[in-house]
Amino acid sequence: MTNKIITISRQFGSGGRSIGKAVAERLGIPYYDKELVDAVAKQSGFSHEFIEEIGEYATVTSSFLFNIAVSSHPMGLVDTMSVSDKLYVCQTNVIRDLADKGPCVIVGRCADFILKDRPDCLHIFVHADYEHRAARVHARYGETKQPMQKRLQDKDSKRKVYYKHYTNRNWGEAQNYDICLDSGKLGVEKCVDFICDIAEMK
Amino acid sequence: MTNKIITISRQFGSGGRSIGKAVAERLGIPYYDKELVDAVAKQSGFSHEFIEEIGEYATVTSSFLFNIAVSSHPMGLVDTMSVSDKLYVCQTNVIRDLADKGPCVIVGRCADFILKDRPDCLHIFVHADYEHRAARVHARYGETKQPMQKRLQDKDSKRKVYYKHYTNRNWGEAQNYDICLDSGKLGVEKCVDFICDIAEMK
Repeated sequence: MTNKIITISRQFGSGGRSIGKAVAERLGIPYYDKELVDAVAKQSGFSHEFIEEIGEYATVTSSFLFNIAVSSHPMGLVDTMSVSDKLYVCQTNVIRDLADKGPCVIVGRCADFILKDRPDCLHIFVHADYEHRAARVHARYGETKQPMQKRLQDKDSKRKVYYKHYTNRNWGEAQNYDICLDSGKLGVEKCVDFICDIAEMK
Repeated sequence: MTNKIITISRQFGSGGRSIGKAVAERLGIPYYDKELVDAVAKQSGFSHEFIEEIGEYATVTSSFLFNIAVSSHPMGLVDTMSVSDKLYVCQTNVIRDLADKGPCVIVGRCADFILKDRPDCLHIFVHADYEHRAARVHARYGETKQPMQKRLQDKDSKRKVYYKHYTNRNWGEAQNYDICLDSGKLGVEKCVDFICDIAEMK
């Protein structure tokens, strides 16, 4: 397998996570999600919940989350790096270590940027139109007080800001990825087929 | 064939045109390039050279080209629409007419935006890294006085400005296309295979 490390960036509700899992399963390689959070927690001292909440979204943390993070952080406030920056550095190290271990699928967390200089990577971006994403989010997470359109916009807007802040690139700009797919138009199964086909390409 | 109209947008030197031609050939459908320019020339009264030069690039025409265009234009300066706007309107009509005629491949000229409301279209964006594009442009067009990096940047920058001006969308933003492919990473042949596969999908 030439393209042995597969990174998947995705719009909220586009099915990128499901596609990542299915690709990993079909190729018989690890899919890092919980393990990544575990490793970051171990290295950073931050809680799982904090990493899941902040690790792809915030550049400026809320004071509430900031206080929880600092109180549970073994280093306290010994240096001037922001919590978000510390977490990013830690995620970067963990993602590089995981990629060094061998073939795998990594979803989100700027992995495409962090591993951009490795020639053995395949960088994917998955997106879909509003209708497909709304239906998927509704089926998976149910209703919330927030209207669906705002829910999708908020989540992607935060991902966009986070990505721009740490990479100085535009999230979802085609030239940052090897393949971008509309999972609504093509269907999840076809996306999985194509990614596996390319990953196994000589 | 469900996705019978295939539009291909492309970075300069990415091989998008070659991919479009190969896809059309393999699917046995027309590839519109010269025919599109012919039809626009007939409808607008502008020369072929002017349409090829301006039809994807300029929002503000140079006075030299403007003068040639106006002097050969049957309507002269009877209204206040800019030459570029007239050409865009004309291209829009021609592209819609061609799509109505049946399955085809159309490269560039904002065709993805013009046909965005047709469900039977497949919108593709092709890009590649600098090395692949430079090699392709060099092999195809040879050396010029302008350094290669500037040549590629200038052309794409003009396409980007033109696209933004007429569509209010960002050129090369993944969510505007069904599939975006890095032809350098994947190879032209693999791009053709995948597009044909999706075009023929039920």
